[in-house]
Amino acid sequence: MKTYFECISCFVRQTLDAVRLVTEDEAMQEHVLRQALHEFSKMDLRQSPPVMGQRIHRLIRKLTSQKDPYRGIKDRFNALALELYPQLKQTVEASSRPRETAMRLAIAGNIIDFGVNSQIDSGHVHEAIEHALTTPLEGEVEAFYEAVSQASSILYVADNAGEIVFDKLLLEQMPREKVIVSVKGFPIINDATMIDVRDTGLDQLVKVIDNGSDAPGTILEECHEEFRRHFNETELIIAKGQGNYETLSETEKDIFFLLKAKCPVVAKHLGCRIGSLVLRRSDRVRTSAGIYHEGPA
Amino acid sequence: MKTYFECISCFVRQTLDAVRLVTEDEAMQEHVLRQALHEFSKMDLRQSPPVMGQRIHRLIRKLTSQKDPYRGIKDRFNALALELYPQLKQTVEASSRPRETAMRLAIAGNIIDFGVNSQIDSGHVHEAIEHALTTPLEGEVEAFYEAVSQASSILYVADNAGEIVFDKLLLEQMPREKVIVSVKGFPIINDATMIDVRDTGLDQLVKVIDNGSDAPGTILEECHEEFRRHFNETELIIAKGQGNYETLSETEKDIFFLLKAKCPVVAKHLGCRIGSLVLRRSDRVRTSAGIYHEGPA
Repeated sequence: MKTYFECISCFVRQTLDAVRLVTEDEAMQEHVLRQALHEFSKMDLRQSPPVMGQRIHRLIRKLTSQKDPYRGIKDRFNALALELYPQLKQTVEASSRPRETAMRLAIAGNIIDFGVNSQIDSGHVHEAIEHALTTPLEGEVEAFYEAVSQASSILYVADNAGEIVFDKLLLEQMPREKVIVSVKGFPIINDATMIDVRDTGLDQLVKVIDNGSDAPGTILEECHEEFRRHFNETELIIAKGQGNYETLSETEKDIFFLLKAKCPVVAKHLGCRIGSLVLRRSDRVRTSAGIYHEGPA
Repeated sequence: MKTYFECISCFVRQTLDAVRLVTEDEAMQEHVLRQALHEFSKMDLRQSPPVMGQRIHRLIRKLTSQKDPYRGIKDRFNALALELYPQLKQTVEASSRPRETAMRLAIAGNIIDFGVNSQIDSGHVHEAIEHALTTPLEGEVEAFYEAVSQASSILYVADNAGEIVFDKLLLEQMPREKVIVSVKGFPIINDATMIDVRDTGLDQLVKVIDNGSDAPGTILEECHEEFRRHFNETELIIAKGQGNYETLSETEKDIFFLLKAKCPVVAKHLGCRIGSLVLRRSDRVRTSAGIYHEGPA
């Protein structure tokens, strides 16, 4: 997905939100804002929004000399999600459709995204859980599990700290021996890294690798070789969150995108309403499937 | 009022909204956006937001070679307001408090502000009228009319096209022989100019002058001498809308600000909620009044 004109005012707001989280020094906040505005005036709009997100947050980390400004937030949401986990697991087990419920909850966890909203609190998480259990899910759950069952290998591209605990619920419904989960290689916003994997015990459930990158999405050419090899060789990809959708929506792979549509640009690109629970298979496959079905047998 | 960091993302959004109204040429839209971002990166935040508003719209008019891009919008809302006027006048006359009702309706007209929202339509105007007649008014109506009655001269600094028809209702409650109304000297967003005064017949009700400026507010040092003389010599000033509040809130004059608080920054500065109907006397006078009352008799 390219960067739309609408993304730019959102970048400015995100920059301000982020720098305010990192420092109370108004002169520093102004300095970062001005630098960011200068960058925005020259940005390449053909690139996806996370490319600019990566640049903004590199700038903030560099100018404020803080290597991992969202560490405290990540710890807080890992703890919150771990606290909720036993009850959520019970909800899945008590459900008449445990596989769908697990997916809904994994998508609910995608609310914990400090790139889109720096004011997320536990109230938002509880609301998102309630919403996810009662609202229509835009996508075909059966097709997802069918693809999961048929694939010989699966790469699950995770998104945020805290959210990865919600992902456990979905991973528990999957044949984990053929699944590898990936997280970010370096701190970027509140995206999960290996610290979060260890802190939440995700690595006790499934194999986890990092992607070697600090982009708030998956910019393949920036990821290290091991990740790219897994990405290219795996049969099925499951990608969580807006950042992964924005960076991978045009990639020639069989990808299921699982996310909450949290901004108007992404919602419009997906053709859904803001707040929707989305399970969307990549266009390439949907197109191919059409050809397969309609072509000569 | 200075420019707050929060204003900058709003400037970006406003720039995009405005340039989209003016041209469908996406390359031109991008060119204007990039130029504006470059300007924002260097702006003087001690100045009020309308200073940057003026610069954005000068840029748009220059780059698109359109001298009055909002002319059609201004015509449309003048016509709408003139159509509503007889009924609104009847509402005032039938009211048990006609002076308060006239003021409420004059503030309702301030919804027609394309700087804050480029999507305003007749539905918003009808809603604003309904809202203005039923919601608390933040300010003292009696103190306003008392000051109006006592002042030897009054300058009524008008805001937008269409809105000036709503202002008629309030002006009709005032001793018009001592009132002068001012409008903008040159086109800026949908602010009223002398064209709108003539089109709506406002000049048949009261004396009207222009201020010689194209700022979306009142930047005194940019106004022509006649306006500045009236401004300095008049005893009481009534200033409509956010732009006039933002540019005159620290001016050493007795000013009543009448506006709908439409953005979070202005609402916070006023200490009210977004959407509030505000009648606020300038701080200087409120402070002076305190001193007069508390000092020795």
